[in-house]
Amino acid sequence: MADNAWHVARGYRLGGVHCGVRSSPDRRDLGMIVSDRPAAAVGVFTKNRVVAAPVRLTRQRLPTDSARGVIVCAGNANACTGKQGLHDAATMATQAANAVRVPDEAFLVCSTGIIGRPLPMDRIASGIAAVATQLGDDQSAVERFAEAILTTDTRIKVSTRRLHADGCDVRITGVAKGAAMIGPNMATMLAFVLTDAAVAPNPLQTILRRAVDRSFHCISVDGHSSTNDTVLLLANGASGGSPLAGDALAEYGSAVTDVCQDLARAIADDAEGISHLVTIDVEGMRTEQDARRVAQTVANSLLVKTAIFGADPNWGRIVSAAGNAGVAFEEEDLSLWLGDHLLYHNGTPTPFDESAGTAYLKDHREVQLRLVFRLGSARCRFWTCDLGYEYVRLNAEYTT
Amino acid sequence: MADNAWHVARGYRLGGVHCGVRSSPDRRDLGMIVSDRPAAAVGVFTKNRVVAAPVRLTRQRLPTDSARGVIVCAGNANACTGKQGLHDAATMATQAANAVRVPDEAFLVCSTGIIGRPLPMDRIASGIAAVATQLGDDQSAVERFAEAILTTDTRIKVSTRRLHADGCDVRITGVAKGAAMIGPNMATMLAFVLTDAAVAPNPLQTILRRAVDRSFHCISVDGHSSTNDTVLLLANGASGGSPLAGDALAEYGSAVTDVCQDLARAIADDAEGISHLVTIDVEGMRTEQDARRVAQTVANSLLVKTAIFGADPNWGRIVSAAGNAGVAFEEEDLSLWLGDHLLYHNGTPTPFDESAGTAYLKDHREVQLRLVFRLGSARCRFWTCDLGYEYVRLNAEYTT
Repeated sequence: MADNAWHVARGYRLGGVHCGVRSSPDRRDLGMIVSDRPAAAVGVFTKNRVVAAPVRLTRQRLPTDSARGVIVCAGNANACTGKQGLHDAATMATQAANAVRVPDEAFLVCSTGIIGRPLPMDRIASGIAAVATQLGDDQSAVERFAEAILTTDTRIKVSTRRLHADGCDVRITGVAKGAAMIGPNMATMLAFVLTDAAVAPNPLQTILRRAVDRSFHCISVDGHSSTNDTVLLLANGASGGSPLAGDALAEYGSAVTDVCQDLARAIADDAEGISHLVTIDVEGMRTEQDARRVAQTVANSLLVKTAIFGADPNWGRIVSAAGNAGVAFEEEDLSLWLGDHLLYHNGTPTPFDESAGTAYLKDHREVQLRLVFRLGSARCRFWTCDLGYEYVRLNAEYTT
Repeated sequence: MADNAWHVARGYRLGGVHCGVRSSPDRRDLGMIVSDRPAAAVGVFTKNRVVAAPVRLTRQRLPTDSARGVIVCAGNANACTGKQGLHDAATMATQAANAVRVPDEAFLVCSTGIIGRPLPMDRIASGIAAVATQLGDDQSAVERFAEAILTTDTRIKVSTRRLHADGCDVRITGVAKGAAMIGPNMATMLAFVLTDAAVAPNPLQTILRRAVDRSFHCISVDGHSSTNDTVLLLANGASGGSPLAGDALAEYGSAVTDVCQDLARAIADDAEGISHLVTIDVEGMRTEQDARRVAQTVANSLLVKTAIFGADPNWGRIVSAAGNAGVAFEEEDLSLWLGDHLLYHNGTPTPFDESAGTAYLKDHREVQLRLVFRLGSARCRFWTCDLGYEYVRLNAEYTT
C-alpha cells in the first residue's frame, strides 16, 4: 500500500461533525459509524464500578449479530447522570437509527468527556441529523470520525490491516482515542475496530478479549480505568465468503490483535505531559497473567516513572517495583535491561556505566525496560509513559 | 504529663551515633536499643519479594521470648547485596551483642538507605563500640535513637502512651522513620515499639498485626513497599506483674494501635514534597478489608493526588477511583464529603459551591475526604499526601 493509504473495511460509512457538545467551535465532537448490513458486534468495557449510561446501554445490546451502527459524542461522558443519562443514551441511539433508517436497537452508543453534566440533547439531535448526511466510505471519512471522538488527544489514532483469509480479502480499520485524563473529570479510552470479515459473535468475542488483553490492558498512563472505557469489534461480512474458522480465523484474530496493539501504543504515546514512551517487556514468567502483573506494577510505579523522567537509570526502583507485584520470585531469578544496558543480572547489580544509562534515557524519547525472569516462557509487552512536571501541571492546574 | 514529656518504657536503654554509613558528617546514622532483660519480640515485614539481608535475618529470629536488642544503620539498606549482605547483617548482630554482653542471636538488625552497595563494616564496627558506651534510658536517649534511624525525613517521629493494665503501670514508646522515597534507590519505613508490659509472643504477634493493619498499612506516599520495611514490637515485662490477658491485654493492644497510628500519620505528614496531608475515611462498607481497599485505591490515584495539589474539588476523580478498587458497589450506595462539603450524594453530584471546595483545599494543609457507603458498618481511616512539582523534582532530579 502507499505510505499513507489506509485499509478501509468495506460496507461501512463513517462521519464526524461539530455540533457543540464541547465548547471549541471548530472541533468535531459527534461521530457516526453505519454498517450497510447487519454486523456481528462484541465489546469489552470498563471494569470501573461507576459506569456511564452509554456503557450500560451498549453492554446490554452486545453481543449481537445484527449491529448497524455506533454513535459517539466527545466532550461529555454522560456518566453519573442518573436516569436522565440512561434516557439520553437511548435517545441518541434512536435518533441515530432513525436518521439512517435502521432498527433502533441495532445502534450502539459511546460518550467521553466530563462527568456529571447532562448531555446537550438539542445539539446532539442536530448533530446526528447533520452527520447522517455526510457519511463516507473513504479514508477522509475515517479521518473525520477519528477526529470527532478525540478529547484531550493531540492527534488521531488509526491503524489498519489487510489479510487474505480463507480466500477472502479482509480489511480491518481501527480507530481510537486516548486515555489521558486531564479533563475537569476525566477522559476515556474508546476504540472501534471495524472489519469486513464474516465472523460469528461467539468467536468474535474470544478474539476481542484476547486482543484487548494484549493491547489496551497493557497500557497505563495513570492506572485509572475510567467510567466510559469501551472497545467495540464489528464484523459485517462485506468481504464475502462464509464465516471464518480454523487457521483463517486465527490469522484474522492475530491481525485484530496487531491493530489493537498499534492503537494502544499510540494512546500511551499521546499521553498528557509525556516526555518518554516506555516499553516494558517482561519475559520468562510462569504465566502471561503473572508477566502482565509485573509489567503493570512497574508501569504504574511513581518512582520508576519519575526516575525515567529524570533520566536516572535507577535499577533499584524497577527491581523493587517488580517485587511489589504480588508475584512469587526470588531475586536470583531476575535480570534487568535498560535498552542494551544490563543493569542487574540474576539478582545482583552489575557494574554498568551509569552515565551511559543516563545518556540512553536523555537521548531517546522511546525507551525499553526488559525484565527477564527464569521461571517459565510466558511474556508480556506493556507501554507506559514517564511522569514529569507537565503531567502535574496539566492535572493540577486544570480545575473544574 | 508535661507537654513535651514522653513516656519512656522501662528496662530499655537506647542510643544513636554518627559513624559514617552516610556521608553527612554531623548526622547520626547508627542506633541501638538494648533491653535489660529478655523481651518478647515480634515483627511485621515488607511484602516485597526483593528482601534486604537484615530483614531475612531478623525474620528468622522472630517471634522470640528472649530478644535483648536491636541494631539499626541508616544510609545503606544492605539490600541486593547477596551473600556478603547476609554475612554483614549477622556480623552487625554479633558485634552489637558482644558490645553489651548478651547472646548473639538475641539481637535483631535493621538497615535503611541505598540499595546494592556493601555496608562499610569497619565504620559500623566503630559505631557499635561507640553507641554501646553512651546508651541511656531517658527522653534524650530516645531522641538520639530516633535521629539515628532517619534518612530523608525532615524530623524525628516519636509517640508514647501510658496506661494502667491489670494493676501495672505500662509505658509504650514508639519510634519510626518515614517511607518517602527519594534516595538513589529508596528509603524504607522502620518502626520500633518498645513496651514494658509482660506479654507472651503469641498474643503480642496478634496485637502487632492488628495494629499494623490499622496504621502502617493505612498510609501511602507512593504505593511502593520497600525491600526493608520492618515494624518491631517488644514487651520486656519491666512494668512487673504477670503476663497480660483479657481486658488488660485488649487495652494494651489498643494503646499499641494508637501509637502505631500516630507514627503512621507522622510518616505521611513528612512525605517528600508534600503540600497536603490527606485523611481518607471510608465508612459503611461490608468488611474492613473492602474499606481499606477503596481507601488505598483513592489514596494511590495520581488523578486524586494531583487534583488535591491543584486545589480542585474534583469529585469525579475520587468517585471513579473508588470504582476502580475492585470492590462491588452501586453508584447509588456512595456519598462523598470533602471536609464539610457534600460533593456527591447517593450516586448523584450535588450542586455544591466549587469555589468553597477550592478554598477549603487552598486554606488547609490537612484535608479530609469521606466516602460514605450504605453497605455495612465497616470502616477504615487512611492517610496519604498530594502530588505536586516538588515530588517530581525530588524524585526525578536526584540521580544515582
